[in-house]
Amino acid sequence: MSKSPSPVSVLDAQCPSRLVLDRIADKWTALIIQLLSKKTMRYAELHREIGGISQKMLTQTLRSLERDGLVERQVYPVVPPRVEYSLSRLGRTLIAPLRALCRWSEKHLAELQANRARAKAKRDGAENN
Amino acid sequence: MSKSPSPVSVLDAQCPSRLVLDRIADKWTALIIQLLSKKTMRYAELHREIGGISQKMLTQTLRSLERDGLVERQVYPVVPPRVEYSLSRLGRTLIAPLRALCRWSEKHLAELQANRARAKAKRDGAENN
Repeated sequence: MSKSPSPVSVLDAQCPSRLVLDRIADKWTALIIQLLSKKTMRYAELHREIGGISQKMLTQTLRSLERDGLVERQVYPVVPPRVEYSLSRLGRTLIAPLRALCRWSEKHLAELQANRARAKAKRDGAENN
Repeated sequence: MSKSPSPVSVLDAQCPSRLVLDRIADKWTALIIQLLSKKTMRYAELHREIGGISQKMLTQTLRSLERDGLVERQVYPVVPPRVEYSLSRLGRTLIAPLRALCRWSEKHLAELQANRARAKAKRDGAENN
């Protein structure tokens, strides 16, 4: 495939790729895709593994991911119904870029916290003088 | 370096790395860092290049990025003051992961839109039957 310049640009507010970026540049999307990259999971498992996500947010994010064809939802007709989530082929192409963001957050945490503390001290100092 | 398991985990709601992920997994952060990866820019230039960002959102995002030490703000004492933004050393380590997200959005736009349309047609069909 040739790498000719594309008219599609996330910098253009009118370009629909902006909506896609908005969908994937999201903390919950990153965490859900990271978990499903390891295995198919049930709703309750996802809810347990992602600390601090509300049921409403998990349901909403899973629905968007399913609608966009990134996640597949499989319902097994048993009682009570068993519902499992897994990554689609397209969803799997997001594993690497989103994992890179998660790893960055973990790796640079200390540096970022030190920067924040320094900025806060500077601000506080300015207020007291 | 060994790849020993880290106690830092974005999956843990109490881990501060979650806050870092929230900060960087953001559409505006991705766009600002992509632009500053090419050159130092003034506020007005950034505002012009990023279609659809409000002044409030641009100011807020730049302040957070500066506080976290990802962006450096340089004020030149001229009249009117000239203010320039550039990436810090830490900020430059974010170029590659965030560019990957932007490129993904542009590359998979058509597929995602087709999936959305299919999901919508299915939903509409279900409602009419």
